[in-house]
Amino acid sequence: MENRVCSLFNIKYPIVSGGMVWCSGWRLASAVSKCGGLGLLGAGSMHPDNLRYHIRMCRENLGELPFGVNVPLLYPEMELLMKILIEEKVKIVFTSAGSPKKWTPYLKEHGIVVCHVVSSALFAEKCEKAGVDAVVAEGFEAGGHNGREETTTLCLVPKVREATSLPLLAAGGIALKCQIKAVEALGAEGVQIGTRFALSQESSAHRMFKEHCTSLGEGGTRLLLKKISPTRLAYGSRFTETVEKMEAEGADREEMMQYLGKGRAKRGIFEGDINEGEIEIGQACSLVNSIESVEQIMKSLI
Amino acid sequence: MENRVCSLFNIKYPIVSGGMVWCSGWRLASAVSKCGGLGLLGAGSMHPDNLRYHIRMCRENLGELPFGVNVPLLYPEMELLMKILIEEKVKIVFTSAGSPKKWTPYLKEHGIVVCHVVSSALFAEKCEKAGVDAVVAEGFEAGGHNGREETTTLCLVPKVREATSLPLLAAGGIALKCQIKAVEALGAEGVQIGTRFALSQESSAHRMFKEHCTSLGEGGTRLLLKKISPTRLAYGSRFTETVEKMEAEGADREEMMQYLGKGRAKRGIFEGDINEGEIEIGQACSLVNSIESVEQIMKSLI
Repeated sequence: MENRVCSLFNIKYPIVSGGMVWCSGWRLASAVSKCGGLGLLGAGSMHPDNLRYHIRMCRENLGELPFGVNVPLLYPEMELLMKILIEEKVKIVFTSAGSPKKWTPYLKEHGIVVCHVVSSALFAEKCEKAGVDAVVAEGFEAGGHNGREETTTLCLVPKVREATSLPLLAAGGIALKCQIKAVEALGAEGVQIGTRFALSQESSAHRMFKEHCTSLGEGGTRLLLKKISPTRLAYGSRFTETVEKMEAEGADREEMMQYLGKGRAKRGIFEGDINEGEIEIGQACSLVNSIESVEQIMKSLI
Repeated sequence: MENRVCSLFNIKYPIVSGGMVWCSGWRLASAVSKCGGLGLLGAGSMHPDNLRYHIRMCRENLGELPFGVNVPLLYPEMELLMKILIEEKVKIVFTSAGSPKKWTPYLKEHGIVVCHVVSSALFAEKCEKAGVDAVVAEGFEAGGHNGREETTTLCLVPKVREATSLPLLAAGGIALKCQIKAVEALGAEGVQIGTRFALSQESSAHRMFKEHCTSLGEGGTRLLLKKISPTRLAYGSRFTETVEKMEAEGADREEMMQYLGKGRAKRGIFEGDINEGEIEIGQACSLVNSIESVEQIMKSLI
């Protein structure tokens, strides 16, 4: 499986674990990197000092093996976060949820490999112009925050492949080996997997979150909160029922923001409040029925 | 490419053109069958006598080559339609939009090969119990009427593959050869292609419909009308803007039905009224940029 993605990140298998809020701490990231993939830390749910701790723990566990950090570009204390990435000599950064133009030159100046997550070919072209090293094309199936175009991985990957010559990873809906083969046929050179790793033993998510998500079947998630920012969530809790009812009855953005409040994702994913928290998870959860170790998962994928 | 789907339908390539309302008349169906695939007539937009005419025209053009008829099980004059299928000795029927239990035994008694379109593995199991010969797993990307689970082709096909041992075709979002390879990796043994054939020269759709749809880019379609029946439509006309506004403001099912009225699909697809008609088309239209002949399309796929 040696290819451009493997060379770029210096990994054995072109499999990246997504940097997911409240899931992707040092335990998950290190486990994936130890198995020959690339583990990412999810900075989105970490205070800067906490991120520093997780980076150090990764290094302690991994030695010279690579790992990376996912940075949502809407992070409130971005300057401080960037400072930490440089100070801690992080070598790989995945950026998402924003324009690749703003931080790519800064990261590249510091010798960091930059990979940007896109939900359209249009943005992939912008990435190439901004000088990023690789793109992740993430489809409608993905958990959590999601593109407005609703383009699925099957339609997105060939379109992005046509738009850019950069190394290309596919994401969104991928949990099985046959799906890795499928996106390779579409032109992807590697994959970023979220849901399956979010539900692994090493994920920092709450046991209740993992048990709930592994029990979900077809139609178990839905893209909701479109008036704020489209977000894929497990479906059928008190929270999503209220959201759906409000949306169906025409609540506006402000009313939705007010009901949503703060800290719902932490409550759902990290504290395991299935009924009132935001259970961010991808459509692929219907293909994941048990809580496995990262080693078991990696073995089944390669 | 010889496999179970080819044997079942007695075709050279496991490529079926969808039986699409206002697109799939005898010209399109015959052209696909002549090129070694399986052309379907779309009974959904045909009065019974008109269907009889299209069946006869297919036979006249195809001789012994196979073709089929797609029957949406919500068809208002179902008894009459079934009578015509038998009288005209149709050999292959694809049923959709309903339970496979009701008509499968009747069709099978008359020696007809039955294939049912599903949007979930749950329904694929029901198909097997009902005695159908093959299933089409159609994902969220598909144009027109669509499953409520919103499961994409990438997530649906492996799930259906696991649920049934029947010959399996994939549909939804497939317009390119690389996508055929992708769904084969997921376990499909053939494909049903809608959008690309709807936009072919031989499709009965209006020239304006074809020109509009081939000009659409990413995010050019959206799943709308969820309070009535989820339908994928080209996005950005006066009609869809009104639908979106009404939906955002909480219009109920009845209000939506009243605004929708009757004959919108005919108006959009067959009469080419881009602004006020329903432009039913799949997400794959962003991958289709010109109006080609069926021969050109088939060549590019095989």
